[in-house]
Amino acid sequence: MFAESGYDGATVRAIAAKAGVDAAMVNHWFGGKEGLFAQAILNVPFDIMEVIELVTRDGPHNMGENIVRTFVTRWDGAGGEFFVALIRSVTTHPEALHTLKSVLINRIFGAVAEATGSDQPNLRASLCATQIIGLGMARYVAGLEPVASADVETLVPAIAPTLQRYLTGDIG
Amino acid sequence: MFAESGYDGATVRAIAAKAGVDAAMVNHWFGGKEGLFAQAILNVPFDIMEVIELVTRDGPHNMGENIVRTFVTRWDGAGGEFFVALIRSVTTHPEALHTLKSVLINRIFGAVAEATGSDQPNLRASLCATQIIGLGMARYVAGLEPVASADVETLVPAIAPTLQRYLTGDIG
Repeated sequence: MFAESGYDGATVRAIAAKAGVDAAMVNHWFGGKEGLFAQAILNVPFDIMEVIELVTRDGPHNMGENIVRTFVTRWDGAGGEFFVALIRSVTTHPEALHTLKSVLINRIFGAVAEATGSDQPNLRASLCATQIIGLGMARYVAGLEPVASADVETLVPAIAPTLQRYLTGDIG
Repeated sequence: MFAESGYDGATVRAIAAKAGVDAAMVNHWFGGKEGLFAQAILNVPFDIMEVIELVTRDGPHNMGENIVRTFVTRWDGAGGEFFVALIRSVTTHPEALHTLKSVLINRIFGAVAEATGSDQPNLRASLCATQIIGLGMARYVAGLEPVASADVETLVPAIAPTLQRYLTGDIG
């Protein structure tokens, strides 16, 4: 519904009705519209801790590859229209932007960067965000070829080393 | 005017009036609205060949650094509101998206990737675009710290090696 109606148009009431549940339940279990949006961003039901676990489970030196696999797989699964709606939302709604920042950066990449034990975790987390957001923009919004239709096995050797260096390598 | 009024709102007539020239002159010398928008994207008056020259003039192994310096300097100079308007335009107007793709990717990064003599120039060009668009999103749209307010001397050692690898290194 965020993809169809935008951040404003998608009401908790309408989402709850479509799901056949009470709006109060959505507010209680999902943290209202902001919480729903946060989960929609990554297509993660219930728990973004799962994403952090998927990325970090093989130790610090596999995180670059795990980030590319996790995000591309989930975003491909959610469909390209979704990412366009996300970007449109963050350029027009400060609330959506705040959610993107607090979820994608502070929670996910922040936790991943902390897990490496590297210096400058905040800079490393925001560098990872630049590459992942840009990949999403190129693949889903702009449709830039050949990145847009490359399979994950092409993207991993190309982009994983970037994220790996941002997390555990020399950044200057 | 693109930043203030969006791609639709900024008419060639209004832009010409503000500049104190005839609209026909704008159409002739700038290629109409699409041409003006292309130049506005990079804040480049008259000639995007200048950007390609700035990036490539020190040879293949300094292109990563030159890309970061050229884009960050020009975009910082153009102001953050401009980049937000750009992204809003490309998510709502296929014409603006087409221009962004044909200018930023096919002309600039395409020419730069060709100039390296590396294999897979198209993939390399689109990989460069992912990192540069993501940097623009994080710095100007999302305001992700510390990338958003880092000076260019912090960004160069962090991000230039990414672009350099995309252009001349191992991408798998």
